[in-house]
Amino acid sequence: MKKAVLNKLVIFGVGLIGGSVALALKKAANSPRIIGIGRNADALKTALELGVIDGASNNVAEAIHDADLILIATPVAQTAAILAAIKPHLGPNTVITDAGSTKSDVLAYAQNVLGEKSNQFVGGHPIAGAEKSGVTAAMADLYINKNVVLTPSADSSPHAILLTKELWQACGANVSEMSATTHDSIFAAVSHLPHLLAFALVDDIASRPNAAQLFGFAASGFRDFTRIAGSSPEMWRDISLANKHALLNELNAYEAELLTLKTMLKNDDSAGLQALFERASVARNAWAHGQNNF
Amino acid sequence: MKKAVLNKLVIFGVGLIGGSVALALKKAANSPRIIGIGRNADALKTALELGVIDGASNNVAEAIHDADLILIATPVAQTAAILAAIKPHLGPNTVITDAGSTKSDVLAYAQNVLGEKSNQFVGGHPIAGAEKSGVTAAMADLYINKNVVLTPSADSSPHAILLTKELWQACGANVSEMSATTHDSIFAAVSHLPHLLAFALVDDIASRPNAAQLFGFAASGFRDFTRIAGSSPEMWRDISLANKHALLNELNAYEAELLTLKTMLKNDDSAGLQALFERASVARNAWAHGQNNF
Repeated sequence: MKKAVLNKLVIFGVGLIGGSVALALKKAANSPRIIGIGRNADALKTALELGVIDGASNNVAEAIHDADLILIATPVAQTAAILAAIKPHLGPNTVITDAGSTKSDVLAYAQNVLGEKSNQFVGGHPIAGAEKSGVTAAMADLYINKNVVLTPSADSSPHAILLTKELWQACGANVSEMSATTHDSIFAAVSHLPHLLAFALVDDIASRPNAAQLFGFAASGFRDFTRIAGSSPEMWRDISLANKHALLNELNAYEAELLTLKTMLKNDDSAGLQALFERASVARNAWAHGQNNF
Repeated sequence: MKKAVLNKLVIFGVGLIGGSVALALKKAANSPRIIGIGRNADALKTALELGVIDGASNNVAEAIHDADLILIATPVAQTAAILAAIKPHLGPNTVITDAGSTKSDVLAYAQNVLGEKSNQFVGGHPIAGAEKSGVTAAMADLYINKNVVLTPSADSSPHAILLTKELWQACGANVSEMSATTHDSIFAAVSHLPHLLAFALVDDIASRPNAAQLFGFAASGFRDFTRIAGSSPEMWRDISLANKHALLNELNAYEAELLTLKTMLKNDDSAGLQALFERASVARNAWAHGQNNF
């Protein structure tokens, strides 16, 4: 299939995620003209000054005119409103994608808001991040060898899928496709559940009368385990609620696993505990060393 | 109180923990003569060749003769047998300590095995470790500014407590004292529970038909959260069973926290979720930045 043409890219939300896409494209061949749009004028000014974007706008109609691709890289909570602002001005050949961490909710927004134009939309999720946020933290190499999952619907046009795929490939990412539902069940297990478990542990400990003493003896294992509990409360509130059905399934499966462990402990089941820990440590270390042999 | 005299130290198990004590003392003033003893002749030979110990022995009576202090730094499962081997040859002025991660079980071994000589015993737990194990991983600075908890019983002699405290202070550690029971309940919360939770998550995921797909999309948050699931299955089996009562209490408290989270999710309790995540992220980040303000 011949390459799709990307001459003009509009990014809603030029922060770490959107800004890193822009920087990556500027290093790639045939980099497009990149227009940033957002509610935070200071952030857009910084993005312009840093050379992350070629132009800034607060006028949706003007910004997306003649755009080949629109990337929504704001918090997911803003996606429906942005789609509604885009729709009246959306040209027939313009593709829309997003970078949210949950995909079924975003697909539903696209279908509800865009209606007959929802074939121009393809959801996406770059599996990359950093400790810091904002355009000053953006990096041209953020997506190199990282996974990006696209979640086209049955309606999504082949052109929309191709252009979105090539956007992320130009950033150095490994692009895969799956349904929004499959995406959300996978990420409930490997991302959303661990975040909830880490938040739960820290809240459990912080709420106790002897919290200071407990934290005083916490060490490096606790530090790594709870790192993700330092993440944005607003973002994780939104992700948790957007993906609540898959997440509740994961919590139920996890509670069953904890019940197994508790039963082994109560029964002094030394062999059972060792077998469970062994399976986990072998699997974890194989994964960490890149040997995904399942 | 004047300094206790440490002219001869005997270390059972010259691995990462015991070897790092030896190396630290060799850098300190008035370093004692250090004798290693253990079942693994090759490891002792390596320790001698590396200059970690001054002598090696496989004869308990000979090794501990005239020793001021004996440090048991083997896996905890060997402690009772080592205490039994020591007792017939134990001089009246020799102090015994250990470096195990659980303290009530070790105290019970000391009282049962040493009997009337248990006043010569003080349990200890250095809160330090490294990814690697064995004497070749030993480091002189492993304990600098790390916590070491001593768990003297009502029987422990003032001399035994002082000598053990000075041992760890000479290694650069911050030494505190508490009962074995208090120690075990603190570490159930901040160490043993997180380890079990991480093992449980990885085992839960690894046991599924689509495990390869799930691991394929796991990213840096999963990597940090599960690092401790790569730990030694044997060691964590022993710790879990040794501290099972405190650990079961922690698992019950954690399940109550998960139930709170599940109820919030089911009820779309956005404010409740945000408040819980906020408490956790504030507490975690304050702790990580050394502001333990509870």
